[in-house]
Amino acid sequence: MKLGIDIMGGDFAPDAALKGASEAAKVLPQDVTFVLIGKKEVIDPYLEKNHSGDKRFAPVYASEVIDMSDPPTKAIIRKPDSSIAIGFSLLKSKEIDAFMSAGSTGAMMVGALYSIKAIEGILRPSIASIVPKQSGNHGVLLDVGANADCKPEVLHQFAVLGALYSKYVFKIDQPKVALLSIGSEKEKGNLATQAAYQLIDQNENLNFIGNIEGYDFFTEKSDVMVCDGFTGNILLKFGESIFHMLHKRGIKDEYFDTFNYQNYGGTPVLGVNAPVIIGHGVSNEVAFKNMLIQGSELVKSGLIDQIKSAFELNKIG
Amino acid sequence: MKLGIDIMGGDFAPDAALKGASEAAKVLPQDVTFVLIGKKEVIDPYLEKNHSGDKRFAPVYASEVIDMSDPPTKAIIRKPDSSIAIGFSLLKSKEIDAFMSAGSTGAMMVGALYSIKAIEGILRPSIASIVPKQSGNHGVLLDVGANADCKPEVLHQFAVLGALYSKYVFKIDQPKVALLSIGSEKEKGNLATQAAYQLIDQNENLNFIGNIEGYDFFTEKSDVMVCDGFTGNILLKFGESIFHMLHKRGIKDEYFDTFNYQNYGGTPVLGVNAPVIIGHGVSNEVAFKNMLIQGSELVKSGLIDQIKSAFELNKIG
Repeated sequence: MKLGIDIMGGDFAPDAALKGASEAAKVLPQDVTFVLIGKKEVIDPYLEKNHSGDKRFAPVYASEVIDMSDPPTKAIIRKPDSSIAIGFSLLKSKEIDAFMSAGSTGAMMVGALYSIKAIEGILRPSIASIVPKQSGNHGVLLDVGANADCKPEVLHQFAVLGALYSKYVFKIDQPKVALLSIGSEKEKGNLATQAAYQLIDQNENLNFIGNIEGYDFFTEKSDVMVCDGFTGNILLKFGESIFHMLHKRGIKDEYFDTFNYQNYGGTPVLGVNAPVIIGHGVSNEVAFKNMLIQGSELVKSGLIDQIKSAFELNKIG
Repeated sequence: MKLGIDIMGGDFAPDAALKGASEAAKVLPQDVTFVLIGKKEVIDPYLEKNHSGDKRFAPVYASEVIDMSDPPTKAIIRKPDSSIAIGFSLLKSKEIDAFMSAGSTGAMMVGALYSIKAIEGILRPSIASIVPKQSGNHGVLLDVGANADCKPEVLHQFAVLGALYSKYVFKIDQPKVALLSIGSEKEKGNLATQAAYQLIDQNENLNFIGNIEGYDFFTEKSDVMVCDGFTGNILLKFGESIFHMLHKRGIKDEYFDTFNYQNYGGTPVLGVNAPVIIGHGVSNEVAFKNMLIQGSELVKSGLIDQIKSAFELNKIG
């Protein structure tokens, strides 16, 4: 398995990315190799010093870097030799099995959509976030920002994508799928969720439990929580701000510590033809390490093929 | 000033409502009187025992109670002798200056819209929530559930309503108004917020600071946060669930303790012709007391007249 990592993306790159890869190598199996994508003058001295002669590490040079000021839609075209453009090119040609970056979310989404592309039948790929449940289990929330406005058919597809992620990556047999809304009754919600309710309810492959409210976010009621990317993004950042306030106020707690984004690595892009993970802009060494572990699990799970066959068989949406 | 309180609404009514009124009487000026609306057999023994001969307490009897299983749109008509129906009737005839209840939110909204009605020019009245800012100041978030789908013109009006609340109730001179969104740039957001951005930005009476993200919810960046009622309701309940988890896990903290809804009383309905506050369903004695204090401040602020004249002068929306 070859994991491609953009070592130039994120506030603490390249150091955090390089060290994260070294740490991941200690815990991942020997057949996992690390394709480090970035500037030669950065990678070569690091590998020379830390992994000289180690065949698990392979550099791929990229002379450019997409930064946050680059307009995402044009960045990939304007900077074809950037680490993100090269990463997607390697992913498309199957020279790597997964691509991860803590760089520009916009450029990552554009890169995914224009290089490896959406899986046939998928209306809008989604960015998912892992949610620490009170029980210690992992929930999935989607969308968290790729699609601000979502038609009911798109929300329905998110339900399918989230359920497959939960099943194949988290090994939850019949994941409980819920629509995030403002009341448990099916007529509650906005126009899009009311219509999506019907579609999801009719899908016999889903274990749909109906609407859940903001109260139920961290409970065991659901494994998969579906919402538009506007709501999901605001919630995600709101939750993160609470984690930061707890931290700032010196409150230590085993459960709230699981809110720390770095434990999860990054947010997977679901519905595209290969595993892609977008890391948090402030990813540190631990976050990069966990993003690589998450990437290896994503490849191992065979999720992409499962999504392909689900959408092929059912012609969902 | 006459404050009308539904003593039958809420999980802990009538006890919590009655005791809350007694507590509020201790701290509010002598010219504030309490109109207790509810069952005779409940009110009379309580007043006899606790406030015999006290002219600050006046009972108004209601033989019926709207409960959570009553459909909100029909409850007021079907139960004309309910405490909520009578409360609005007293408010309309100006026999009370404000009406408060911890009963059905739906019935309260319907009651407000059909009895005292929306202020002329207001497209959709809104339910606002008070947000404890990290500085100790109070922010206003609206809408938190009255309107799941909002047109840009409606979001613009929420900005005006929130700013007036902040100015006249919290005495913040030039309240900073923000749109809750998924990026600080004006082109970020969903279709409704992108269009609302233009409208709010063009309103010279508002101190509009642009978009804020979920991260900024508790910071001093803004005094007024505008969003649709779907997003606002989910956020409010999400925040509340975090407060409960902290409590459950035995975490005590001065700032997080301010999250406790009972400190705020209830959520004011903005854009209707008289002061109305909806209490939390689980309102205890402290919550009722604070809801009555909040109601007295709302009446004293003259907010309703300020809203009327703002919408008259500017023909907003």
